[in-house]
Amino acid sequence: MKPRDSVALLGVGLIGGSIGLALRKRKLARRIIGLGRNSSRLRSARRRGAVTATSTRWETGVAGAELIVVCTPVGQIVEHVLELAEYCTGPTLITDVGSTKRHIVESLEDQLPAHVQFVGSHPMAGSEKTGVRYSRADLFAGRVAIVTPTSSTPKEAIKSVCLLWEALGSRVITMAPGVHDQVVGAVSHLPHVVATVLAAASSRREQQLVSSGWMDTTRIAAGDARLWQQILEDNKVHVLKSIDQFAELLQQFRDALAEDDRRSVSRILKAGKRNRDALGS
Amino acid sequence: MKPRDSVALLGVGLIGGSIGLALRKRKLARRIIGLGRNSSRLRSARRRGAVTATSTRWETGVAGAELIVVCTPVGQIVEHVLELAEYCTGPTLITDVGSTKRHIVESLEDQLPAHVQFVGSHPMAGSEKTGVRYSRADLFAGRVAIVTPTSSTPKEAIKSVCLLWEALGSRVITMAPGVHDQVVGAVSHLPHVVATVLAAASSRREQQLVSSGWMDTTRIAAGDARLWQQILEDNKVHVLKSIDQFAELLQQFRDALAEDDRRSVSRILKAGKRNRDALGS
Repeated sequence: MKPRDSVALLGVGLIGGSIGLALRKRKLARRIIGLGRNSSRLRSARRRGAVTATSTRWETGVAGAELIVVCTPVGQIVEHVLELAEYCTGPTLITDVGSTKRHIVESLEDQLPAHVQFVGSHPMAGSEKTGVRYSRADLFAGRVAIVTPTSSTPKEAIKSVCLLWEALGSRVITMAPGVHDQVVGAVSHLPHVVATVLAAASSRREQQLVSSGWMDTTRIAAGDARLWQQILEDNKVHVLKSIDQFAELLQQFRDALAEDDRRSVSRILKAGKRNRDALGS
Repeated sequence: MKPRDSVALLGVGLIGGSIGLALRKRKLARRIIGLGRNSSRLRSARRRGAVTATSTRWETGVAGAELIVVCTPVGQIVEHVLELAEYCTGPTLITDVGSTKRHIVESLEDQLPAHVQFVGSHPMAGSEKTGVRYSRADLFAGRVAIVTPTSSTPKEAIKSVCLLWEALGSRVITMAPGVHDQVVGAVSHLPHVVATVLAAASSRREQQLVSSGWMDTTRIAAGDARLWQQILEDNKVHVLKSIDQFAELLQQFRDALAEDDRRSVSRILKAGKRNRDALGS
């Protein structure tokens, strides 16, 4: 990615803040404008060095920005991109970091002025922690970033967004928005549901006796509940399918254990270990 | 715990090795004899400094040991305690570290000679890694150790075993063996099943896109499959009950999401977050 003169970030929490820190550290943008509604959060981002300027007036904030990254919750991304696009005077590339893609990408298709291009992104990085104080310049290093063009997305725009994530250290994979939602429903949204239900099902007494295993298995349940509700609702079809597949294998395991079918119990335990071992510590 | 002259450890993997390292570091035993069947594993434990001597001949190995900790897999603990008890010539206290307790404790009740006392233990510490090379002197520090006496366990023996775990840095909780199995079925065995099924259900393609959340949630699935099979089979009744409770709440969450019952989705997400937040990072 060639260094940009001016980049705007809408939303400066964990993800937006980390993008700002990474762009600055790698000297990829001269000006980084943090946009939002909440002045005190914007000030925190500036104090942390994640942005070089801030504004709650988006119209003036986006003036001159060549690239805008929308880092607001999934449920607001479409309206935010549409609003920002109105304020763009020159050629502008907009991407987002939402955890779901089909609804967002389809809603924006053919809705933007000709000089504004949108390409959906989903950096597979994050934490159960939220807020700019947890942001890190290396949050995206070594992680996968998924870019989700459609058949009508201009090649140059796709390339620019891929180069952005590569410049931040990620391995970029492109896929159709619907395929993204299916895969991410299985590898990200399902684990969130499972961790949440495990944590929610525990009694006060049990919580006093949890081991490091329980702590690991439920860690992501500490994620922002409202944000996750939006994600799960937006990707409902695929999340339900993933839950059903998981529940079916859980039931198989349960029945095998109940019926002393030692071969099936062993097969599932070994399959789980093999898949997990293949991915390292 | 007052320092012992001679302690024997049967089984010198992650847990046995860590007990040896902790006893030596805290100068709680002059001699620590590592017992087992496999000479090369015993040599590894000695090289690591977890034991001061080793023996594959248990009869000579336990001679003079005041305290024996049996650190073999759950399915072998009863026979190992019975065998060791035959070789004990003087007053000897035996404890174990098995992840299930009712079957072990009940099987040994009234089966031991008068000069040998058994008290069941379960240090809630461990790792998905196995083997003495992962053992650490601080494995038990700050963790819970559950001690499971029965109405016929002598008070002095209970106290000695509690002092052992406290000396290794653990917070000791005593409970009846059956209560232990119920609670641990929920906080330790259920998470193992859930992590295993999640890892086993993932496809090759999905595995290429896992995030840190999936990695955390499935970490314990890398545990030893044979060892876990023994644990789950031994604690079958409680594990099945825990799986059923979990599956019921998962189904409730699934149906709420499917039916756009936003209040119920939110309630479960918030309960999971609240329970997890209460336990820290």
